[in-house]
Amino acid sequence: MKKFIACTVLGVAALSVATTAAAQSSIEDAIKFRQAGYAFMAWNMGKIKAQVVDGAVPYNKDQVAAAANAIAAIANSGMGALYPAGSDQGTGYNPTRLKSEFFQNMQEVGQIATNFNAAANELASVAAGGDQNAIKAAFGKVGETCKACHDKFRAPQR
Amino acid sequence: MKKFIACTVLGVAALSVATTAAAQSSIEDAIKFRQAGYAFMAWNMGKIKAQVVDGAVPYNKDQVAAAANAIAAIANSGMGALYPAGSDQGTGYNPTRLKSEFFQNMQEVGQIATNFNAAANELASVAAGGDQNAIKAAFGKVGETCKACHDKFRAPQR
Repeated sequence: MKKFIACTVLGVAALSVATTAAAQSSIEDAIKFRQAGYAFMAWNMGKIKAQVVDGAVPYNKDQVAAAANAIAAIANSGMGALYPAGSDQGTGYNPTRLKSEFFQNMQEVGQIATNFNAAANELASVAAGGDQNAIKAAFGKVGETCKACHDKFRAPQR
Repeated sequence: MKKFIACTVLGVAALSVATTAAAQSSIEDAIKFRQAGYAFMAWNMGKIKAQVVDGAVPYNKDQVAAAANAIAAIANSGMGALYPAGSDQGTGYNPTRLKSEFFQNMQEVGQIATNFNAAANELASVAAGGDQNAIKAAFGKVGETCKACHDKFRAPQR
């Protein structure tokens, strides 16, 4: 667990490097925890989408604010520490889809992470206010920052 | 996804019931998402434990505050919706360990959930302040509320 302490609150730019004998299991734990974080964010994105974007479910301000708050808090929790060197190979809950290119483009990764955090914080901010048009716009920006990373650094579904 | 919209922000007391043809896959999604939420909370609990309880890692106020904030935001995100009827059977990332007794003791479940949320919010509050003794105490209370549910409603590891 110690190796996953976040180096920065902001993000992916600062990576801890697993160098101990327990490196392999640590890598698999890191992959598992990051998969957990993204899955939980996806659940909350889905709730906001259903209520504010698709209108498939009646809008509930408190639920959307709580969902946005969870996304932002997870984004801000220092997930960069969950990308130790070598974690482009390995299985958490599922085999990782992280491309090796991730570790060769740390400056770009850092920028994407910064953009993602900013978008998630903006979504939480407008969700607390309750302006559905603003929430919809902010939700779209979060989605764009997710996609920016997926397009570049996530391998297609196997 | 729609079926998992939270009925209340607070918690487990208000459950949505999956009754559609997609009930089984919905149940498995619900189990997966709740497992993700608990795993991500566990990662953050581990960071706080290492820095504030065990002292195995130097204390960093921002990291601990971010970790506590993630735990609280996940706790407040309406996870009760991730306990549809029948979800004591099924596999998310792993086979669920939820006991059937969960659904027969909803009043107690609601009280445990309320206690958990209150403890998580208190932890986030004191972590923002930076008083390590207060954080340690609040961390202990969160752990007690986790254990209260595990002892009663989670089957032993298979």
